[in-house]
Amino acid sequence: MNRDVAVGTTVLAERIGATLEGPERVVRRLLAPGATAADAIVVAGDAESLAAALAPPDAGSLAALLVPLDLEVREPHPPLLRHADPRLALARISAALDEEVLPRPGIDPGASVAAGASVAEDAHVGPAAVIASAAVVGSGCIVGAGAVVGEGCRLGDGTRLFPRVVLYPGVRIGRFVRVHAGAVIGADGFGYAAGPAGAEKLHHLGGVVIGDHVEIGANTCIDRGTLGDTEIGDGTKIDNLCQIGHNVRIGQHCLIAGLTGIAGSSTIGDGVLMGGGVAVTDHVRIGAGARLAGRAGVTKDVPAGEAWGGLPAVPLRDWARERYLLSRLERIWNFVRRAEKSTS
Amino acid sequence: MNRDVAVGTTVLAERIGATLEGPERVVRRLLAPGATAADAIVVAGDAESLAAALAPPDAGSLAALLVPLDLEVREPHPPLLRHADPRLALARISAALDEEVLPRPGIDPGASVAAGASVAEDAHVGPAAVIASAAVVGSGCIVGAGAVVGEGCRLGDGTRLFPRVVLYPGVRIGRFVRVHAGAVIGADGFGYAAGPAGAEKLHHLGGVVIGDHVEIGANTCIDRGTLGDTEIGDGTKIDNLCQIGHNVRIGQHCLIAGLTGIAGSSTIGDGVLMGGGVAVTDHVRIGAGARLAGRAGVTKDVPAGEAWGGLPAVPLRDWARERYLLSRLERIWNFVRRAEKSTS
Amino acid sequence: MNRDVAVGTTVLAERIGATLEGPERVVRRLLAPGATAADAIVVAGDAESLAAALAPPDAGSLAALLVPLDLEVREPHPPLLRHADPRLALARISAALDEEVLPRPGIDPGASVAAGASVAEDAHVGPAAVIASAAVVGSGCIVGAGAVVGEGCRLGDGTRLFPRVVLYPGVRIGRFVRVHAGAVIGADGFGYAAGPAGAEKLHHLGGVVIGDHVEIGANTCIDRGTLGDTEIGDGTKIDNLCQIGHNVRIGQHCLIAGLTGIAGSSTIGDGVLMGGGVAVTDHVRIGAGARLAGRAGVTKDVPAGEAWGGLPAVPLRDWARERYLLSRLERIWNFVRRAEKSTS
Repeated sequence: MNRDVAVGTTVLAERIGATLEGPERVVRRLLAPGATAADAIVVAGDAESLAAALAPPDAGSLAALLVPLDLEVREPHPPLLRHADPRLALARISAALDEEVLPRPGIDPGASVAAGASVAEDAHVGPAAVIASAAVVGSGCIVGAGAVVGEGCRLGDGTRLFPRVVLYPGVRIGRFVRVHAGAVIGADGFGYAAGPAGAEKLHHLGGVVIGDHVEIGANTCIDRGTLGDTEIGDGTKIDNLCQIGHNVRIGQHCLIAGLTGIAGSSTIGDGVLMGGGVAVTDHVRIGAGARLAGRAGVTKDVPAGEAWGGLPAVPLRDWARERYLLSRLERIWNFVRRAEKSTS
Repeated sequence: MNRDVAVGTTVLAERIGATLEGPERVVRRLLAPGATAADAIVVAGDAESLAAALAPPDAGSLAALLVPLDLEVREPHPPLLRHADPRLALARISAALDEEVLPRPGIDPGASVAAGASVAEDAHVGPAAVIASAAVVGSGCIVGAGAVVGEGCRLGDGTRLFPRVVLYPGVRIGRFVRVHAGAVIGADGFGYAAGPAGAEKLHHLGGVVIGDHVEIGANTCIDRGTLGDTEIGDGTKIDNLCQIGHNVRIGQHCLIAGLTGIAGSSTIGDGVLMGGGVAVTDHVRIGAGARLAGRAGVTKDVPAGEAWGGLPAVPLRDWARERYLLSRLERIWNFVRRAEKSTS
Repeated sequence: MNRDVAVGTTVLAERIGATLEGPERVVRRLLAPGATAADAIVVAGDAESLAAALAPPDAGSLAALLVPLDLEVREPHPPLLRHADPRLALARISAALDEEVLPRPGIDPGASVAAGASVAEDAHVGPAAVIASAAVVGSGCIVGAGAVVGEGCRLGDGTRLFPRVVLYPGVRIGRFVRVHAGAVIGADGFGYAAGPAGAEKLHHLGGVVIGDHVEIGANTCIDRGTLGDTEIGDGTKIDNLCQIGHNVRIGQHCLIAGLTGIAGSSTIGDGVLMGGGVAVTDHVRIGAGARLAGRAGVTKDVPAGEAWGGLPAVPLRDWARERYLLSRLERIWNFVRRAEKSTS
């Protein structure tokens, strides 16, 4: 939190792929439109936020103002950075100004590392963390305080487990993955068979395989597979408090918002977007590029590229049409009552 | 759990703001209406629970029976405590009889406290807890076993973190706050920009600020802000397994029940009540004193003081009307089918 | 993960209650229909999966193929195991082939066990685990890394807490229970009374009592009772990320899928099945053997043996009928519009 980050706007423009119009300044902070400081940059993605950004009397004192390529900016204004995609620029500026100091390489004396585990020399293992036997922790990894890496787990280079993450045995995680605090990966799936004296447990003999550049939210759970593996593709981001069931296969570059649940053995294609609180039943397929509205309850396959919502989920246009028809129901009911009276 | 709590009914009446009718007794236990013991008090908030409380033949042996000011109680009965608000009295009696023994001040030898951290002398830090550098733990705080207090976090006086809570760096918490086990505060929000090679992460430069007398449930997640802070107002209580997104601002004295999700940048006014499993989309405003029914799916602003429910959420009266009209649908359909036949 | 499990099919047949047709082989792996290996068994529960199992040219080299009693299998085929219930057989084979090595008895030097706690000699307590005073850990128990067993808790014989489980004080758990990582049992329920200066907390004086052979999912929360206990019956299985409120009583042999919430004081009978994401409001009764569809929002009592779904939940036949009638709404609306025109 207390790395003193300062970057000149010439270097910053270079780093984020922007062009600088005006004198170079030094940036230390990223502020929202409407706030000002002499060492701050503000990103205004459209005319409305530009107006907000220039509203304060001292807006001209900003170190820089980032705007789209073609947005006209009235004089006077601070030095401009122009970028084709202000949101992407915002992400890159936020990366450049992130003050986080990474912990130093080394194993905390309060950590517990099993004899047979392999931890790269430049990895960090925090206090009260546990690395079990035959686990492999790659170069530059950070295993946060109290995280548990089970037997035979593998963490690719540059991967970070935040505090209290639990990996059950055999979980394989790619490179540059971030797993947030309290996430649990590789617990048993929810599978039982009815036996004569109650449910008998399906022992889960599969694992979990997570690709590169994945981010997994706090307290999210990803269960291990029954026979094969549960899989999360490269670049996919999963928010907090999601439940990913056994044998689920999620493609690459999906975004899955918080409190979403995906039941066992369902398959999610590449680039799927899910709003918050979505529920996907078991054994369905969501095609590549599909979009699910928040709270959608998916009970059957969703074709690639379609946008669905509702409970049970249907194409958004059908859902909107149903909502419209429901709004006519009062009139329909009045008509029917009158008609019934007139014919009785 | 094993503090031997005993309190005389005269003192208890004084402490909870009740009046005692009858002889003083000693109370050690709070029981539900229908149970009896010579050292127990029972709270009967209405005529029905009074009948249940007096049903057992030995109900007269209770140490005390708390009833509303104006509720008539047939003879014979145990000594009475009278209070204008029996539920409030119940809360205060439960506080008086809580047997919990707080841990002793001091830092457990199994805890890890960074050199630059400041821990009050009368605070308790449990085994396997971690306090990072520049963190400040106030007077009378309790940091439970295995809790992690990130760099630069601040805990106000009397605040308690239950075991395994994780505070990411820079989280500021007020006084007399209770954060239950497994809660994660200050993780990155779920924000990305589409880049040429996949999603690029929005680094979250803001923090989380929590007021006084807040309670946060087990395994609940509160994300840090993008540029500014995510804020929770004084006296607000959040139940288990809730997800509070980046930049959300929740007012004072709200009650938010379990498995509720509030998406990024939404604003919740003072005194809002949310049932379980509510979902609030991003960038909406819920006015002060609004009430959301369990499972409400809020997709737009809710005016102050209104009660909404349904998916998408609408005013409860509209939802009830729609439910009524749906119950007429069979009759409507029958009418239309008959009419179509007669005109064909 | 690296126990070298090998079992002959004669012994395996005996153990799972199957009959062997053909020569004995040695089994080391359980594969899905369509995969083959000389040391593998495949379970084909119906004709379709049998076809998949026999599709590969080398399917005959499988060590065994398990099929229902009466399913005809074309020649050539691998040695057969026959069982009346292939799913039950699958569960038992998965148990026989589970490679997991249990940790050795003993208390890890990095664990913290209070003076007054009682831990059976053959129990295992992992690194960074905490056992508080007056807690009792039974024979053969496994307390995972970083798990917290509060004061006065009791774990029956053979019970396993996975890493980072938190038991608040006084929780009583039966025999052969599995509690997955991050679960929190015994936190305060969500109960407050409106006081003059904001909500006053109902102190929860009750506990949590969990029966035998229960399984509780990762990051699930079960709150303690207000006056009495929250109860989970023998053999009940609860999935990940569920919220069980204060005073809830769940019967025996229920199955409750992920992200389900059950609000305070509701009662769930024996053998109830709940799909994922169900919400049950407070103070309702779900009768024995009832089934709730995924995402059901239960707002009133559900009779024993019935299947309900929807929000608010109704009998599934009523929900299906409503869905049917809604699908007629376009036609109804067209009729009404035409009729309105013709009569105007």
